[in-house]
Amino acid sequence: MSTTNDSGQEYRAAGVDIDAGSRLAARIKEIVAATRRPEVLAGVGPFASLFRLGEYRDPVLVASADGVGTKLNLAVAMRRFDTIGIDLVNHSVNDILTTGAEPLFFLDYIASADLGEDDKVAIVRGMASACHDVDCALTGGETADMPDVYLPHAFDLAGFIVGVVERDSIIDGHAIQEGDALLGLPSSGLHTNGYSLARRIFNVGLGGDPEAEKAALYRTYPDLGLTLGEALLAPHRCYYRDVKPVLPYVKGIAHVTGGGLIDSVPRILPEGMAARFGRGTWRIPPVFTLIQREGNVSDGEMYHVFNMGLGMVLVCAMSEIKRVRSRLPETRLVGEVVSQAGEKRVIIA
Amino acid sequence: MSTTNDSGQEYRAAGVDIDAGSRLAARIKEIVAATRRPEVLAGVGPFASLFRLGEYRDPVLVASADGVGTKLNLAVAMRRFDTIGIDLVNHSVNDILTTGAEPLFFLDYIASADLGEDDKVAIVRGMASACHDVDCALTGGETADMPDVYLPHAFDLAGFIVGVVERDSIIDGHAIQEGDALLGLPSSGLHTNGYSLARRIFNVGLGGDPEAEKAALYRTYPDLGLTLGEALLAPHRCYYRDVKPVLPYVKGIAHVTGGGLIDSVPRILPEGMAARFGRGTWRIPPVFTLIQREGNVSDGEMYHVFNMGLGMVLVCAMSEIKRVRSRLPETRLVGEVVSQAGEKRVIIA
Repeated sequence: MSTTNDSGQEYRAAGVDIDAGSRLAARIKEIVAATRRPEVLAGVGPFASLFRLGEYRDPVLVASADGVGTKLNLAVAMRRFDTIGIDLVNHSVNDILTTGAEPLFFLDYIASADLGEDDKVAIVRGMASACHDVDCALTGGETADMPDVYLPHAFDLAGFIVGVVERDSIIDGHAIQEGDALLGLPSSGLHTNGYSLARRIFNVGLGGDPEAEKAALYRTYPDLGLTLGEALLAPHRCYYRDVKPVLPYVKGIAHVTGGGLIDSVPRILPEGMAARFGRGTWRIPPVFTLIQREGNVSDGEMYHVFNMGLGMVLVCAMSEIKRVRSRLPETRLVGEVVSQAGEKRVIIA
Repeated sequence: MSTTNDSGQEYRAAGVDIDAGSRLAARIKEIVAATRRPEVLAGVGPFASLFRLGEYRDPVLVASADGVGTKLNLAVAMRRFDTIGIDLVNHSVNDILTTGAEPLFFLDYIASADLGEDDKVAIVRGMASACHDVDCALTGGETADMPDVYLPHAFDLAGFIVGVVERDSIIDGHAIQEGDALLGLPSSGLHTNGYSLARRIFNVGLGGDPEAEKAALYRTYPDLGLTLGEALLAPHRCYYRDVKPVLPYVKGIAHVTGGGLIDSVPRILPEGMAARFGRGTWRIPPVFTLIQREGNVSDGEMYHVFNMGLGMVLVCAMSEIKRVRSRLPETRLVGEVVSQAGEKRVIIA
């Protein structure tokens, strides 16, 4: 981990405290050490991180770059920095899991106008804990203070993951056929999508009056059994440990992210096929019902923006359902693959 | 490449134009196609990018995450977006080159309040061209519009690179000895460090009066033979193609970045050793002389902030100098490794 960017590296003359940078680097180093895997080569690479790949027959590296979108603004409004790093890592791990890959290492980029040292440490701690949960090494990152780029109190966070999968084990959806099953896995909330809309509906995380935003975020809704802020900040669930045992039995995996169920699922379907979901086959969590009611949002838009309770959708042959469910009882049969009749590639019927 | 983050993916209801996102994605896709390598697996991985590693005896993956610091602000002030992507890629390629690694693939993260489509495309074009120059695949990225995070007209840019080196070819400085040679390679300007200080000295890229900033940036200095803006925005030089042929003969490579010569070079030196540079053994480019004069900056600070004309420092045995220089005539003998007498690990004498 370095704090050696332009501003992080400079000297009081330009308004940046270099000692603060070293102190932060030392605290980060300690946190990150907990995620070390034996493949991480220690004591080398001051300018880069080194990870010994180990033995594979035909390794394919699977990588993804991601942000967490404007869930950030809610973290800022609630002054809670301990979970947003979890969101970033879990989102990334799920993205590469769609190919069947296991995570190897993760790097991050944190930039802000004026984020405090403790807040930065809390973010890194979240990332490290999520990495540790899936045995992914947090091998590097960059922390930048850029007051001329970011709004006061704002920050941004980007993450980069590399995993590996054997070439003959890549899951890519090519074998998906009409009649295959759609198995859904529950989400833990909005994950990292739909926050621009949710923030506008509840008038939170928009940089408005802090007291009014706080009051809205700390309001408890009986449907949720939680404050609005807690419900919205619930960390993005990681599916790696749960899905890993069933990888041999699935033909395709969609991570339900940007564009909700409507846009995410078709990404893995072969041409000419559509996904037909059965309404009522899974439980729509109360946070979505609340959003829909408070924002007077149409059904169509809800499914186009949010995961609606399904964070990941697995596709397998109907004959494999039993095998998958015996290893992952949490999956629900939520629909099937059909041949595409009209324009629509996702039907909620 | 995706523009599928929270805001990029949404719907006019929340103020974001989804069609603009698809149009941008299509333009980016075309640019990025030029950087494709045969190892990039096409037609799979809508949520991640896949890169087949190929045959190595004992491959070590070398990765780095970077930003470009506040050189960004100068790009914004000059409304020039075609070179900042080159800076990001070249900085990253040089970082992993310090271990002897060849670049494999690169991913980016671009976020802004309101950056226009053409400006985003110009940034990606810069990245793609720099990637292409070193046969590095630009395999993915994320583009996010976050008006509640970034100042108007501001943006941020982060890059992630992965390269590979055989384990027994890693360059890590461990064999560096007293009496070894320091060979310097010329920089093309400030590269990506020292911009917080430079911007303050010239009152540019600080978000002040745009006309006044423009006038300062378009002023031609006789010493430079260029406008100030052109001199400051000169792209970070990439050393990969030049240094690759001499990798077998060098013991250590320092990329002169944050903290200038003073902080960058000791990162690769074994304990108890220092680098003694000979003043006058290399040419200090006029942009640094100008900065020092205009800002009344001490010598000590100049070397602690800027590369001062040396973008990369190679360490090799004195007996290898001839071999290195025959393949890379541009290198200059700029100093030697000495045992450390006092506190200082870099001596400019």
